Amino acid sequence: MSNPARSPLLTDLYQLTMLQAYFNEGSDATAVFEFFVRKLPAQRNFLVAAGLDTALDFLENLKFNREELAWLEQSGNFSPAFLAWLAQFRFTGSVHAMPEGRIFFANEPVLRITAPICQAQLVESRIVNILQQQILVASKAARCVLSAPDRVLVDFGMRRAHGAEAAMGTARSSYIAGFAGTATVLAGMRWEIPTFGTMAHSFVQAHGSEMEAFRAFALAQPDNVVLLIDTYDTLRAARMVVALSTELAELGIRIKGVRIDSGDLAGLSRKVREILDQGGCQDIKILLSGNLDEYRLRDILDAGAPVDGFGIGTSLAVSADAPSLDCVYKLQEYAGLARRKKSSGKETWPGRKQVRREFDNNGTWLHDTLCLEHESVAGEALLFAVMHNGQRVESEPLSIIRERCASELARLPSALAALDTADPGYSVLISPGLVDLARAVDRRFS
Amino acid sequence: MSNPARSPLLTDLYQLTMLQAYFNEGSDATAVFEFFVRKLPAQRNFLVAAGLDTALDFLENLKFNREELAWLEQSGNFSPAFLAWLAQFRFTGSVHAMPEGRIFFANEPVLRITAPICQAQLVESRIVNILQQQILVASKAARCVLSAPDRVLVDFGMRRAHGAEAAMGTARSSYIAGFAGTATVLAGMRWEIPTFGTMAHSFVQAHGSEMEAFRAFALAQPDNVVLLIDTYDTLRAARMVVALSTELAELGIRIKGVRIDSGDLAGLSRKVREILDQGGCQDIKILLSGNLDEYRLRDILDAGAPVDGFGIGTSLAVSADAPSLDCVYKLQEYAGLARRKKSSGKETWPGRKQVRREFDNNGTWLHDTLCLEHESVAGEALLFAVMHNGQRVESEPLSIIRERCASELARLPSALAALDTADPGYSVLISPGLVDLARAVDRRFS
Repeated sequence: MSNPARSPLLTDLYQLTMLQAYFNEGSDATAVFEFFVRKLPAQRNFLVAAGLDTALDFLENLKFNREELAWLEQSGNFSPAFLAWLAQFRFTGSVHAMPEGRIFFANEPVLRITAPICQAQLVESRIVNILQQQILVASKAARCVLSAPDRVLVDFGMRRAHGAEAAMGTARSSYIAGFAGTATVLAGMRWEIPTFGTMAHSFVQAHGSEMEAFRAFALAQPDNVVLLIDTYDTLRAARMVVALSTELAELGIRIKGVRIDSGDLAGLSRKVREILDQGGCQDIKILLSGNLDEYRLRDILDAGAPVDGFGIGTSLAVSADAPSLDCVYKLQEYAGLARRKKSSGKETWPGRKQVRREFDNNGTWLHDTLCLEHESVAGEALLFAVMHNGQRVESEPLSIIRERCASELARLPSALAALDTADPGYSVLISPGLVDLARAVDRRFS
Repeated sequence: MSNPARSPLLTDLYQLTMLQAYFNEGSDATAVFEFFVRKLPAQRNFLVAAGLDTALDFLENLKFNREELAWLEQSGNFSPAFLAWLAQFRFTGSVHAMPEGRIFFANEPVLRITAPICQAQLVESRIVNILQQQILVASKAARCVLSAPDRVLVDFGMRRAHGAEAAMGTARSSYIAGFAGTATVLAGMRWEIPTFGTMAHSFVQAHGSEMEAFRAFALAQPDNVVLLIDTYDTLRAARMVVALSTELAELGIRIKGVRIDSGDLAGLSRKVREILDQGGCQDIKILLSGNLDEYRLRDILDAGAPVDGFGIGTSLAVSADAPSLDCVYKLQEYAGLARRKKSSGKETWPGRKQVRREFDNNGTWLHDTLCLEHESVAGEALLFAVMHNGQRVESEPLSIIRERCASELARLPSALAALDTADPGYSVLISPGLVDLARAVDRRFS
């Protein structure tokens, strides 16, 4: 099966039925759509922009192949002239976006697409599909980073991510947010993200004894000896590690760490630290894993547990306490006229927008202002041109994105950096120009 | 970027470091791993097997390409002999599994892999990654089906699914569970799942008036006229639909339905039904969408709302109230000896297992028994051989899987079919043979 991530048919049917209608009407005026989050999840004081690279990659490579066109034809829902037009389809529009790693809030456009309406409309479903997942993980990961400063955090989420693309997005997005790396090998290959990993319980079980398993592993991976010590009896295994460390030292092999994956993690880590220290193994690090999230990290560290790092899996990969965002991609302007959706409870701010962030003299964040693209409003602009005529302006190295996010997290107001819900949350003001435009649009369409 | 779903490097690094160790030891004895769910999520009385087709496809096509081998080589963690062995790697093992569409419970193996340990170990992460997501969606979808009998349910979840593969899995898994179809076009092309979809709010907004938008759409998609009526004022739009129906009838075009996506859905559907009926449009169906899940479906139908169908998106695609499963893939036997994990709170039942389901004379489910593969225990066996020597035994048509699931849901005990948590839940007994084996394993490894 070919890669669904590449197919223009990975979209909702209504995009194509609308396109047929636009095509019949000869509608190809410029449309402006913006992607934004309507409301932050209850447990999020901020979100982290991510997924832009995947989105731009998708737009750059978008075309219909022969098999896809043949399938649309046999469906009987589309005219031959329309299908001939689809065969030539390319995305030739512009994209403005917040760079990845930037912190943002509700109602702030993260990405804006300006293109002939058929192009801008067709890509809606996939743009949302890409951005939501990576924003969710980057934001969850940022909370983990904030709750465990100076600890090594590793993405263990691949197996519980929702499918292949989510697994890859989890590795990349958590790295952006400050994780040290990932267990997902393919993410290491694709993006040069540091990879972490040693052994599973099955490896211990497959050997006659834990000692035998540890020894076999150390000999096979002498530069990467982290031993999983909770398969049978964690403290007994810790004492084994002390004994083994002497034996391996004679071979020039150093045990770098032990991992505990079950039980009372805080309590066990203290006892294991004691056993290791008394055995002269002060250098061996302790890593924890198993159902961890930012709250557990905080509690374990608050309890003074001597932990060097954490592997975080499920809760990160599925953003367990907020597995979706109330995010949308909405028409804001068409054929030169601003538009807005007025459906009950789902009103949007019309027009092409910019977000400006104001700081005081110490660099502390004051508030953001949602304003018109070219309105004169104080503050740093957060959206930039990232694609012209269907071509990327430039690709950002992942290291730059990661540094940006670290710098954002370092400057974040402390109430927002806390795990508990900030009340009030961060202020996003609406500019006078935007209020005026919304009124004008309402008058026009009423 | 090549398709990550196809790469053997879409795995956790520890699989490869363990493989290097097994390779060095010359370990290639047969290992038996089973995938199962340790505990049902709080809001699930049962789960639905799904994802087997994707898993078998993955196993059949598993191999390392040149780029992947080169990357592993430059990482410096693997020996040349091991890399040469990886270059020849194929999955040649056997798979036993519950067929898709079958209902299952905690601790019951859904899939068992029997293969040389390196093969069986390498695939762990991806097998879990595939099965979890599809089981989650099939199970959530089954609850929607149970709460809205005889209604048309459509998967609208693509955009909020976590990435491309999850979107595809959502369409297929919800169809298995009894959804009428999906909005995801590519799922229609790949699996011949019926596709549904008409127009978005942006289409209405892009036109000078709702009437103009409705007319343009009907002319472009005369066989597929479902109109979205909540962009501005739902009741006003419903009256427009009545007027338009007469106009279109003269052109031989029939309006099939209207969709309401916001507001008080139950109340609006009643008022819209009244407007349509009074206007002689009794045939026009009413479809609802917008933040729906099985609870909302139940409430809307309990309120007597005249609804013909529902589009269900986010809550389905991310299984919002249970976005992950406590599911694992555990070593149960190695080199002819049964094994079990004893980590605190994570003990497993050892050995190759079968699940047998017993019914009374009326076909009512009594209980399941988790037993040894060849133990003589009453009841229908749920696991079958699905792959021999790395080749599928057969492919099941999706229609058969869907019928199986419908038949399972029809026979499900009513306490389990309810949305609320059944207490007690369904009984899964442990056979005497399994209890004895667990004791024997504990004696051997203590």
